[in-house]
Amino acid sequence: MFKPKAIAVDIDGTITDRRRALNLRAVEALRRLKIPVILATGNVPCFAKAVAKVIGVSDIVICENGGVVRFSYDGEDIILGNKEKCLKALEELKKHFSVELLDFEYRKSEVCMRRNFDIQRAREILKDFDVKLLDSGFAYHIADKKVSKGGALEFIAKHLKVEAKDFAVIGDSENDIEMFEVAGFRIAVANADQRLKELADLITPSNDGDGVVEALEFLGLI
Amino acid sequence: MFKPKAIAVDIDGTITDRRRALNLRAVEALRRLKIPVILATGNVPCFAKAVAKVIGVSDIVICENGGVVRFSYDGEDIILGNKEKCLKALEELKKHFSVELLDFEYRKSEVCMRRNFDIQRAREILKDFDVKLLDSGFAYHIADKKVSKGGALEFIAKHLKVEAKDFAVIGDSENDIEMFEVAGFRIAVANADQRLKELADLITPSNDGDGVVEALEFLGLI
Repeated sequence: MFKPKAIAVDIDGTITDRRRALNLRAVEALRRLKIPVILATGNVPCFAKAVAKVIGVSDIVICENGGVVRFSYDGEDIILGNKEKCLKALEELKKHFSVELLDFEYRKSEVCMRRNFDIQRAREILKDFDVKLLDSGFAYHIADKKVSKGGALEFIAKHLKVEAKDFAVIGDSENDIEMFEVAGFRIAVANADQRLKELADLITPSNDGDGVVEALEFLGLI
Repeated sequence: MFKPKAIAVDIDGTITDRRRALNLRAVEALRRLKIPVILATGNVPCFAKAVAKVIGVSDIVICENGGVVRFSYDGEDIILGNKEKCLKALEELKKHFSVELLDFEYRKSEVCMRRNFDIQRAREILKDFDVKLLDSGFAYHIADKKVSKGGALEFIAKHLKVEAKDFAVIGDSENDIEMFEVAGFRIAVANADQRLKELADLITPSNDGDGVVEALEFLGLI
């Protein structure tokens, strides 16, 4: 049985429902863990920081799909992604689509947009840019190609003096793929994207937060 | 028995513990209410918006002690306080104390500082400025004298087509006083400041979130 030294958990769609409300059973279960819990999200640092604080498990967070990491509530944003690259790609997208920006003033490493255009066509348009186009299920993101939740997890593992391979990770969507690639044990909740499920060591019977509880039970952590 | 048409609830120290982690019983109870739940905090709009979203009761929030209100997750910050006045007062305070600013880039109507100086002396220093100095129990705030959680509650009541007097309010600290002054029914949790308890219609037997559950039971709402 895999014995994780730490665990990384996506927020939206993994410990929340579709309306983004926390699954309280999952929060209660995460609070009982004796190992560090890292929250990982596509959302902005000030969202991640607030949600981590009220969940009450850890102030270590991966934000903006790995573009920013934080180690403490009052600490600095450590910015791993280059927003300038994303802004150049945004200019190109604007020539083709009517783009609606989300959280623009708060986003430090990437650009986030409402899901109101054809992402496959947009990927084709941006194929020569040094960026990637992600679908979190809640929004589209233009991110620096070199950043990912996986890279951020390796950055945090080093800080915690463990290996990324010592982590179990739980997620639901394609922005969790790189985190799955570096972790030692991968859990996809029942509502996860097909591609994530194909990479998973465990697919939970239940959706989002209830699936997180099942995964923690499976690992013998609660 | 007072029958509220809506309820306003402070966040830190009222539905969270001292470490700022949500009381899950309180969240579960608030989710069961059939009336609008407004969250009110001294924290910044992006904290309030994030926490409201994951609590899942309402996206209507009072932020920065009434300096900002929001009606929807993707909507605008409605700024009711004048940050310029607060910055002038901050310049004066800096002559007397080594002030440590908190969330400066995110705060839109006021200035927030660590609780590391004598607030009574600071109030004396600022007595001729058009600002007030608040202690939320978690931080000190220089706020525009004309704004308060009470004023913001009246603003929101108008939007909801009810009266502030139709609200029950639950709080724990002195930045909740003006909200107590305009509401129809006032509840102080057991850990509340003495001054707030003196204004309360009900003081709950238990601290923070457990007190919120008791209050909702007392009002026959759950």
